[in-house]
Amino acid sequence: MRETPKIRLFVDADLAADTHVAPTDGQRHYLAQVMRLRTDDHVALFNGRDGEWRARVLSLDKRGPALVVEDSLRQQVAEPDLWLAFAPIKRAPVDFLAQKATELGVARLVPVMTQHTDVRRLNTRRLEANAVEAAEQCGRLTVPTVAEPLPLDDLINDWPPTRRLFVLDETGGGAPIAEALFLADTKTAGFLVGPEGGFARSELDALRDLPFVTVVDLGKRILRADTAAIAALSCWQALVGDWHHAHDAT
Amino acid sequence: MRETPKIRLFVDADLAADTHVAPTDGQRHYLAQVMRLRTDDHVALFNGRDGEWRARVLSLDKRGPALVVEDSLRQQVAEPDLWLAFAPIKRAPVDFLAQKATELGVARLVPVMTQHTDVRRLNTRRLEANAVEAAEQCGRLTVPTVAEPLPLDDLINDWPPTRRLFVLDETGGGAPIAEALFLADTKTAGFLVGPEGGFARSELDALRDLPFVTVVDLGKRILRADTAAIAALSCWQALVGDWHHAHDAT
Repeated sequence: MRETPKIRLFVDADLAADTHVAPTDGQRHYLAQVMRLRTDDHVALFNGRDGEWRARVLSLDKRGPALVVEDSLRQQVAEPDLWLAFAPIKRAPVDFLAQKATELGVARLVPVMTQHTDVRRLNTRRLEANAVEAAEQCGRLTVPTVAEPLPLDDLINDWPPTRRLFVLDETGGGAPIAEALFLADTKTAGFLVGPEGGFARSELDALRDLPFVTVVDLGKRILRADTAAIAALSCWQALVGDWHHAHDAT
Repeated sequence: MRETPKIRLFVDADLAADTHVAPTDGQRHYLAQVMRLRTDDHVALFNGRDGEWRARVLSLDKRGPALVVEDSLRQQVAEPDLWLAFAPIKRAPVDFLAQKATELGVARLVPVMTQHTDVRRLNTRRLEANAVEAAEQCGRLTVPTVAEPLPLDDLINDWPPTRRLFVLDETGGGAPIAEALFLADTKTAGFLVGPEGGFARSELDALRDLPFVTVVDLGKRILRADTAAIAALSCWQALVGDWHHAHDAT
């Protein structure tokens, strides 16, 4: 069994044996200056499509190809089909949320504007950078997509009706999350977490009436939005997602 | 039903009707300068023993009693008996972990030194301050205690044998967490999360042999120590702890 290099990079390029891959300037700087790699050192590459590959450093000069793909480390496999829709919160917690959601296997991050959402501007490029870094570090073979912010009405209108939407309701009107996950038992799901001020009553009422919505409850302590999202994603992975399976012998 | 004041303060003083309570200098500054309270405004007080009380501002001068306790808002009730032992991590994530663990109902935080623990100094006073602030904001009636850091051997030797210890093992040797929690089904529990470098093999072997230990697994993605702790605590609350119950009609 060949050891997987500790350094993993997410790249755009197609990956196959003998392909040359040019890292971005940022990646080149990271490899050469931060990690002090040299010619013939190895890294792992993934692109979300072709699995994970071992690649060798040819050169970390600014010109010319830098990495050559050698052999396959892991095949691309299906990953959890889990979305997270969230009202933008302040910079530190939202960066943090993107990182943690990535570690917790979220496939798609959707910022949603609600009535009580204070934070009206969101740098989705920065969220993507956070997601890429977390994906590289946690060993995922994909990076979650980050949607452009959209109003709650649009989220609801465009929501795929076969995807169960679990709405985190801090007013106590929902089912205990474990019970809700057992009953729904769906591997195609999304969570919606409101802003720090909570959903407006009219928003909650509208959500509750939707056939694809299950309103869930996370107990009596008032959780911050990021805590609630991380907690709910963890429960889903433990009860429905891929934490059920033992590790593969890779 | 009387409305609970939005501002909650954790105090040392005994709480009963007509008691006078002197806030700390920090609390006085917070009430007067940050929240701009005035005479006859109300706050909620709790001390971890006497439930929650409504109190009225008499004065926010530096001299003399400042608050008078008026009426009871909530009785003290039993809270989850959940501990979290963790190898200290860097300042931002460890502060964050103390906040989130408090929101997630942990009763006791225990910093543990393991072989691969890089962070050897930990300001437990700062962790306590983080826990107090989180407890005030999340509506708890208690604040978790923060133990002084201790070596893993001491943690194990002094661990109460009737308290189930769930060890988070990122090497894949544990049972899926939902299964482990179902089988153990204990309301007296603790989690142990290792440092970013993981436990040493000898440490894991020693832990595995203990009759009160269950080794658990959180899937194939490599979680940061703080993510793993928050995820595990969330699963416990959802499956064993107080997220099972609907909200009381308070």
